[in-house]
Amino acid sequence: MTRGSLLTPDVRRAAAWLGDGDREERLARAAWTCLAEPGDRVTGELVAEFGAARALEIASGSHTAPGLADARDRWRPRWDPGLVRAALEAGARKAMRLLTPDDAEWPAGFADLGPHAPLALWVRGDARALATDASVALVGARAATRYGELVATEMASDLARAGVTVVSGAAYGIDGAAHRAALRSGAPTIAFVAGGADRVYPAGHAHLLAQIVDQGAVAAECPPGTTPTRWRFLARNRLIAALSGATVVIEAGARSGTINTAGHAASLGRPLGAVPGPVTSATSAGCHLLLREYGAQCVTGAADARELIGLGDAPSALAYESAESTRVADALSRGRARTVDELARRSGMASGEVTAVLGLLQLEGRAAERAEGWVSTA
Amino acid sequence: MTRGSLLTPDVRRAAAWLGDGDREERLARAAWTCLAEPGDRVTGELVAEFGAARALEIASGSHTAPGLADARDRWRPRWDPGLVRAALEAGARKAMRLLTPDDAEWPAGFADLGPHAPLALWVRGDARALATDASVALVGARAATRYGELVATEMASDLARAGVTVVSGAAYGIDGAAHRAALRSGAPTIAFVAGGADRVYPAGHAHLLAQIVDQGAVAAECPPGTTPTRWRFLARNRLIAALSGATVVIEAGARSGTINTAGHAASLGRPLGAVPGPVTSATSAGCHLLLREYGAQCVTGAADARELIGLGDAPSALAYESAESTRVADALSRGRARTVDELARRSGMASGEVTAVLGLLQLEGRAAERAEGWVSTA
Repeated sequence: MTRGSLLTPDVRRAAAWLGDGDREERLARAAWTCLAEPGDRVTGELVAEFGAARALEIASGSHTAPGLADARDRWRPRWDPGLVRAALEAGARKAMRLLTPDDAEWPAGFADLGPHAPLALWVRGDARALATDASVALVGARAATRYGELVATEMASDLARAGVTVVSGAAYGIDGAAHRAALRSGAPTIAFVAGGADRVYPAGHAHLLAQIVDQGAVAAECPPGTTPTRWRFLARNRLIAALSGATVVIEAGARSGTINTAGHAASLGRPLGAVPGPVTSATSAGCHLLLREYGAQCVTGAADARELIGLGDAPSALAYESAESTRVADALSRGRARTVDELARRSGMASGEVTAVLGLLQLEGRAAERAEGWVSTA
Repeated sequence: MTRGSLLTPDVRRAAAWLGDGDREERLARAAWTCLAEPGDRVTGELVAEFGAARALEIASGSHTAPGLADARDRWRPRWDPGLVRAALEAGARKAMRLLTPDDAEWPAGFADLGPHAPLALWVRGDARALATDASVALVGARAATRYGELVATEMASDLARAGVTVVSGAAYGIDGAAHRAALRSGAPTIAFVAGGADRVYPAGHAHLLAQIVDQGAVAAECPPGTTPTRWRFLARNRLIAALSGATVVIEAGARSGTINTAGHAASLGRPLGAVPGPVTSATSAGCHLLLREYGAQCVTGAADARELIGLGDAPSALAYESAESTRVADALSRGRARTVDELARRSGMASGEVTAVLGLLQLEGRAAERAEGWVSTA
């Protein structure tokens, strides 16, 4: 059984804006985003093996490929040139770019997704933002607390000012706070959305999405017009994790989509951070779960987040003074000079040891010698 | 140069209450607690090699030991039978017990302290409380927040009710909250103090210390009458860590004595837990430091603390449904029945796959078949 080509003359006309390079391959990838759900492994493997254009011919039945007879059923329900043309026309209307692995802006981190990599990205705004080499995903609960939004705002501001691109999902709560703070710092920010890049979702974020388009990029692997579904949210999360140098969860319930993003980051070998919060807060429970059972790093601010992507300063070690200097310092008084013998008795040390330590304390400006003995100057 | 014996007839009379076993060794250990500062390595090694009584003779110069000529100066300033007698008399007045490694109640964990182990413990209350085989140290900031005290109270209550002995340092803040909650639960609790076990420190905890003596134990390695010093606080912390099966830091500044207790726990190989808090709270900064750089476990409640000492339930794994079932569940509507073909188009899956997944969803009570197609019942 064969089907007609998806790439009808109508579709080709609608694809005039698609850009340079291998136009046939680019058009085929656009079509594939209309046929397959995000991350579909069967599709990913077919396209990886044969290229998108040839894979489309195989799917149409005009070329045979062993073992694919059953798989073809997968693409039958959406085999409709009208769907592809509508997506392309919407993309043109919204001044999108279609990114494919041939483009310089294609995120290098997507390679780690293997057969689950997106087939293409529909991008509004400046696609060059996607080619950042220093990025951190800040993600978290939609029903965030004021605490979580405060932490997201401060961390995103600090990261943005340090030249790190903030990546998130444009949802209410943590995502929105992170995008807004990055925008206010004048930095680009990237939003991966679960439906089409032209859809305003959530409705209350129409203005925010427009700002992100102006100053950064809104990207989707689903074609324009696609409604977000629960699956598409979960699949979208892997793109956030794969593009970003590290993922930091700011607030999350113990069973939430955010935990799913964190799982993607971990399984992709990306550093994973979690911001602690009160153990009495349900929206921090997911963060604590990540710290406890998923090896997440404890992140308390932008400096810790930068450290996850190798931009941090060395952590400050805890300095402890020696037991002896503590014991002698304890024995000193500020008001009353004490002899070495008295200090020896009070510290339980030999006089010779006390004298040696007093010399060190004097050098550090913590002790001084008077006519009647030694005093503390700490 | 030799000195007179510390163990004068006066001292021996004052030691009548010291108890059975090797009385000479017991008395010598009592005397050693008066001579040496807590954790003094030179003393610990001498006593370990020769026994306390013989070590005392060596220190007096009546027996020779190679290489000790300098070390002897260490004990000279406090070489005073009057100090030992006063300590023994105070111990008798306060109905103390003197525990030594020969006693069954001597904490097994002290063996890990090596030459820094205490030479003896002066104990008020029921020394048997020290022989617990299930204990957790709950420690933290004196200047605790309401949050920290709430967490300490809940964790101590839950641990006490589960038969776990709560160990702490009787300070204001976290320590006090932990002891009080354990006492209210009717369980014994152990306080290690930095000065003598007879001293009321801090002053505001007179009543609390009395309650701990009534229902548990207050223990010190310094003899009665000793004033606490900074060194003795730091040294005391190692006893809390060494006795306890695990140490949990509830709130702590980044540079605080509590971090020192945590360091002891870690270096003794004891499980270390830290309770997260708001990253905006300075009194949680030490906990976050422990999580980030010292491998502390994230502890959010008594169950996590019990897990540290091997009494926990298995952690609940995060369950994720399959990609396919999510995609089909997304495609179902509660109100409107959909055919398998429509579900296939919406989910981007082949009809055969959709039918298989619908069977599973039906078994789970999440989907039902109607005359017109399938509906969601989730």
